[in-house]
Amino acid sequence: QTEGRATHGKTAQARHGRRGRGAFIGAVHRIASRIDDRWEVVAGALSSDPERARASAADLGIAPDRAYASWEEMARAEAAREDGIDAVAIVTPNHMHAGPAIAFLKAGIHVICDKPLAATSDQADAIAAAAREASARFVLTHNYTGYPLIRQARAMIAAGELGEIRLVQAEYAQDWLTESVEATGNKQAAWRTDPAQAGAGALGDIGTHAFNLLSFVTGLRTEALLADLQSFGPGRRVDDNAHVLLRLERGARGMLWASQVAPGNENGLRLRVYGTKGGLEWGQENPNVMTFAPFGEPKRILTRGGAGLGGSSAQFTRIPPGHPEGYLEAFATLYADAADLIAGTGDGALLPGIADGLDGMWFISACQRSSAAGGQWVTR
Amino acid sequence: QTEGRATHGKTAQARHGRRGRGAFIGAVHRIASRIDDRWEVVAGALSSDPERARASAADLGIAPDRAYASWEEMARAEAAREDGIDAVAIVTPNHMHAGPAIAFLKAGIHVICDKPLAATSDQADAIAAAAREASARFVLTHNYTGYPLIRQARAMIAAGELGEIRLVQAEYAQDWLTESVEATGNKQAAWRTDPAQAGAGALGDIGTHAFNLLSFVTGLRTEALLADLQSFGPGRRVDDNAHVLLRLERGARGMLWASQVAPGNENGLRLRVYGTKGGLEWGQENPNVMTFAPFGEPKRILTRGGAGLGGSSAQFTRIPPGHPEGYLEAFATLYADAADLIAGTGDGALLPGIADGLDGMWFISACQRSSAAGGQWVTR
Amino acid sequence: QTEGRATHGKTAQARHGRRGRGAFIGAVHRIASRIDDRWEVVAGALSSDPERARASAADLGIAPDRAYASWEEMARAEAAREDGIDAVAIVTPNHMHAGPAIAFLKAGIHVICDKPLAATSDQADAIAAAAREASARFVLTHNYTGYPLIRQARAMIAAGELGEIRLVQAEYAQDWLTESVEATGNKQAAWRTDPAQAGAGALGDIGTHAFNLLSFVTGLRTEALLADLQSFGPGRRVDDNAHVLLRLERGARGMLWASQVAPGNENGLRLRVYGTKGGLEWGQENPNVMTFAPFGEPKRILTRGGAGLGGSSAQFTRIPPGHPEGYLEAFATLYADAADLIAGTGDGALLPGIADGLDGMWFISACQRSSAAGGQWVTR
Amino acid sequence: QTEGRATHGKTAQARHGRRGRGAFIGAVHRIASRIDDRWEVVAGALSSDPERARASAADLGIAPDRAYASWEEMARAEAAREDGIDAVAIVTPNHMHAGPAIAFLKAGIHVICDKPLAATSDQADAIAAAAREASARFVLTHNYTGYPLIRQARAMIAAGELGEIRLVQAEYAQDWLTESVEATGNKQAAWRTDPAQAGAGALGDIGTHAFNLLSFVTGLRTEALLADLQSFGPGRRVDDNAHVLLRLERGARGMLWASQVAPGNENGLRLRVYGTKGGLEWGQENPNVMTFAPFGEPKRILTRGGAGLGGSSAQFTRIPPGHPEGYLEAFATLYADAADLIAGTGDGALLPGIADGLDGMWFISACQRSSAAGGQWVTR
Repeated sequence: QTEGRATHGKTAQARHGRRGRGAFIGAVHRIASRIDDRWEVVAGALSSDPERARASAADLGIAPDRAYASWEEMARAEAAREDGIDAVAIVTPNHMHAGPAIAFLKAGIHVICDKPLAATSDQADAIAAAAREASARFVLTHNYTGYPLIRQARAMIAAGELGEIRLVQAEYAQDWLTESVEATGNKQAAWRTDPAQAGAGALGDIGTHAFNLLSFVTGLRTEALLADLQSFGPGRRVDDNAHVLLRLERGARGMLWASQVAPGNENGLRLRVYGTKGGLEWGQENPNVMTFAPFGEPKRILTRGGAGLGGSSAQFTRIPPGHPEGYLEAFATLYADAADLIAGTGDGALLPGIADGLDGMWFISACQRSSAAGGQWVTR
Repeated sequence: QTEGRATHGKTAQARHGRRGRGAFIGAVHRIASRIDDRWEVVAGALSSDPERARASAADLGIAPDRAYASWEEMARAEAAREDGIDAVAIVTPNHMHAGPAIAFLKAGIHVICDKPLAATSDQADAIAAAAREASARFVLTHNYTGYPLIRQARAMIAAGELGEIRLVQAEYAQDWLTESVEATGNKQAAWRTDPAQAGAGALGDIGTHAFNLLSFVTGLRTEALLADLQSFGPGRRVDDNAHVLLRLERGARGMLWASQVAPGNENGLRLRVYGTKGGLEWGQENPNVMTFAPFGEPKRILTRGGAGLGGSSAQFTRIPPGHPEGYLEAFATLYADAADLIAGTGDGALLPGIADGLDGMWFISACQRSSAAGGQWVTR
Repeated sequence: QTEGRATHGKTAQARHGRRGRGAFIGAVHRIASRIDDRWEVVAGALSSDPERARASAADLGIAPDRAYASWEEMARAEAAREDGIDAVAIVTPNHMHAGPAIAFLKAGIHVICDKPLAATSDQADAIAAAAREASARFVLTHNYTGYPLIRQARAMIAAGELGEIRLVQAEYAQDWLTESVEATGNKQAAWRTDPAQAGAGALGDIGTHAFNLLSFVTGLRTEALLADLQSFGPGRRVDDNAHVLLRLERGARGMLWASQVAPGNENGLRLRVYGTKGGLEWGQENPNVMTFAPFGEPKRILTRGGAGLGGSSAQFTRIPPGHPEGYLEAFATLYADAADLIAGTGDGALLPGIADGLDGMWFISACQRSSAAGGQWVTR
Repeated sequence: QTEGRATHGKTAQARHGRRGRGAFIGAVHRIASRIDDRWEVVAGALSSDPERARASAADLGIAPDRAYASWEEMARAEAAREDGIDAVAIVTPNHMHAGPAIAFLKAGIHVICDKPLAATSDQADAIAAAAREASARFVLTHNYTGYPLIRQARAMIAAGELGEIRLVQAEYAQDWLTESVEATGNKQAAWRTDPAQAGAGALGDIGTHAFNLLSFVTGLRTEALLADLQSFGPGRRVDDNAHVLLRLERGARGMLWASQVAPGNENGLRLRVYGTKGGLEWGQENPNVMTFAPFGEPKRILTRGGAGLGGSSAQFTRIPPGHPEGYLEAFATLYADAADLIAGTGDGALLPGIADGLDGMWFISACQRSSAAGGQWVTR
């Protein structure tokens, strides 16, 4: 499945297409790209079955001549068009990122790709090599970085409001793999628990999100880690629970927990950061609120764009505080940033890219090596 | 300011335009109509100043020949076009709803109008009369009814899960008028505290939301009320705090509090309903969660589309539980329902309309009469 | 049931006895008086049945010669003893407060009495008259005033941290009378729903607590009120739900809700106060936390004795912040204050007394008169 | 400082004394032992300075002849008295547990001792040896096990309500050592950060609590662990942060975080347990609430003694649900259980003892060895 969009209004020159098998995350990308009216779907390779590809294209309002049978063809044809797409969204399973990503980058078309970067380090390295040589940009949708209060947290830490960072406690807990649903025909579960397609389990699917988030917010690089991985689900071939210790730059320490077998947790992504001068706590399920505890003073409840917050979070929000924004708006912020980047009206400084993708691949592979060795420290 | 949109995909025949002075709520309507890709802006009367009207239209991608200088002209011209808009969005101050609403209804164009219905009962009655005679539909954006868990609550109560309803505690608390910001050049505050433009203060702006929500969820009509209104802000000419007692059908009783002078409250819309068999509690600022207490059992945390919830909320949501949806998605659900209604693919049974608008006008005027009389009961 | 206690340590001259039919609240008083080691039970009239009185006395470690058959005898005998009790605790049903209270006051023995003051205004006036003439003190156990953060709130408001008070939203919601348990042999329910013994239902049992709390915290007297009372429980002879509007001194307004038929509420006593400069919110079920919103700044989470709080709450607490204190400790603070008052080591300025009791009786009777008149305003 | 108490009422034969330097924890033990009226202070060795010992004894109401100058003398003298104490409370710094504990055990006097068991493994082993040979009982005040909902959690897990346990996430976070307060004359900080007196830092002070709690609740023994310890406070000689991975019996895995340098955390002891059939979450700062998520159903809010909970928590509580109990009541439950154990009216099955103490010592020393080796797994 591939879609193309054209941006609206002043950035009319920017265009993108999208590739993906759809499911939950495909619809998310479509809505996210629509919210700020900066993108339009104009092309797509939506299925390897020509009949289905045509039908899906029609559904999305894609002209028949831009409904392609393969991404190879789409990259070639769109690159050749005067009004070709500017960007393509890749939302396929992890092992199918590298092919289209490299093709579109080589065709000079910007790539907006779902995470993790790839299913294997080799695939990831190939994408990175292509990106280095390409004029086009590569954006990785670590979408949680689009939450206004996450950007606020990053700005506060960068400004020294927490002092020197000592501790990072990150977690992403779910429960949807508590039972072996991959054996019951659940397609999402099937590919996400297939080592060949996913490359990793909880680690790649949600662990990389938690890892990216802590890196994004603290600005600290992880230098070493130690992981204890488990596959609790009977017959499960990938990890469904990861316990990880982290050693970060400048002496900071961290813990990261990613799980898909913790009953009662839907998308419990939670980040807590503590420094010499204060602490911050945030959770994704109620993302419009963050607590900030300056040491020795009462804890404060910061709200998205709320009273006394300064501009850091307000600039990434669309509606007044107290009216909740959610997952789709945070995702949309990445699409808006990408439009700005491509249009030259923004520098994309906050957009995750290749470096973050490689960092995530190191995280996955280091955790896997550590755990395979019985739980040993792995250094960069 | 007026915009027009054409729906996408299968309901390509549906189209709408939008009228509004913009500000916060104008942008909200635009995003909300975009989220589900059912609408497109294709026409507008965006300013009484022709120069500004043209510029704004260009910004929104409206063709120059559909950028009108007035809503009268827009209604006439769009009704005459083969590809004319199907619906218009009216998001002007309250006293400017009636004019365009009646004109578009008479022109056979569906109307999506912000609440409250009007600034005066006379205006409201005129709209109602026009709607009765029109073939076009009238939708009132009591947007909080679009929250999935609010629809879940309505369904649970209709199914008898709370037993006979005894009590409704509704409130909508804000703090943005704690000080007299209308005197400092805040445009939003200026018209919302002007009796001529707004018709009422907290009562109309947020009180009607709370009142509509409790009516929507319980299905009970309010038969009598008593109000104690205050204008705490120095020099303020409308109410900024309303304390209201309610007597509903079948012996139920209620309290409603609307305030814009309660420091620490952003958009504290909260609803609690108690019956002979259980209770429900929901708050707008974290709308993806609702508690349900079956009497004599532990309280349950219901999440939007979450475990064990049944379909009632899941059908109005776009992403999995644990990924928060917010204000814009709830608003979008009204736009999607309206597109279905117009396209004949839905019955609009959950969409607020004229009857709700008149009910809200009764609420406002009954509260004003009650309070003016020193706090007396006012019956329908 | 009557118990007597002797204080420990330096205030060895202070002594008290206790009278009560026991049940839940009797045990509470006993524990509360023990916590700070200022009191000892040394006498009691524990039952009108001499056999049971003796057995209960032995259970509590009361010497046989101080186990009385009636409170009349106990008042007489203890007043005559050199080592007689200093104080008596009265925890009987409301209609049995006046008799012993007046007898012990006349005997020069301090009285610690449960609320409300009495079952009728006449009884209350008689107690008040006795208290005016007595040298002994009268303490009314509006125990929630002993919570450290409630005292903190009172001090903050008195210091002007909220500016001029505009709004008070008080509520006390329970669910234990959702069904007619008084008909099923529940003794607590039986007397609390008997007009003769209780004098009122939710109003007296919990409404007076909410009313006292708002008066204590704001320091504002209520000048007028309007009530809508209901008896939802089939066959119930007292109110089980009260909706009340309040007009306080200096233009402040309030809402008070007391209910015993709100499923999911255990002891939902909650107070919110808003002024020109800020707001405070506190709930009894997690009493170690209060939020304070200075207008225009982020909301702060104040914890009992916690960081940056000043001494106001820390002086009424026994353990470090983060280790929760609860209901019993708040109750104990009243007993400790009473010991200080009697010993002359404290002025009892924060202790509820006769004036609070009479205020509560006015609240009950004004609500009853207002509601009986169909919901009319009743002025002092 | 040493105090003695005599139990009241029916267990009049049980008596105990208490030894401790006081501070915060001394007062806590005194209040806790008073709450249920089962103990009385009747003897003490309250200071090595005879003058101070006498004054403190008088303050506590201890007769002069039972105010001892040393615990050696106290153990000897009390053992010789007909009305000698039954139990002694040891609340001194960790390195001073062994001396008095062994002396009182040998004297046949029951010991109630604060945790951790000792400052070194040698001291711990000596206490254990003495306990094995003694007729008297040894109780270790892992007081958090006294919280009613913790006992409820243990019972639910034992009954299989969570299925097979897979994961345990335990943490105890504080912030009071964020800065080096031990250098500023804070006595509590001074001994708790002195390796000789404390034996460990956060590990011993709070980590053992978290470790004990997870063992108590799950009933699972930890077979191996790996720790990364830090001393963030400048000049600090003990750990103030511990990151620990756990491998428990039957394939369960855990994470434990103990920190005294996490700003905004007061006493953030939190436990989450996940099994094949459900999950439980509980936090100490609002201990009257626990969530239970049966997999595939809505999460439930369990309250202490609340609706539909069964008897497991209600039997350890004193007041109705919704009236919060706190830290002191949980502590009191251990004292009540100890009184029952000594009186023969209870089996003390839930009371932590020597085995728990040795388990905690293993936890401390294994963490220290693991971390000293750079973060290696340490097996039992």
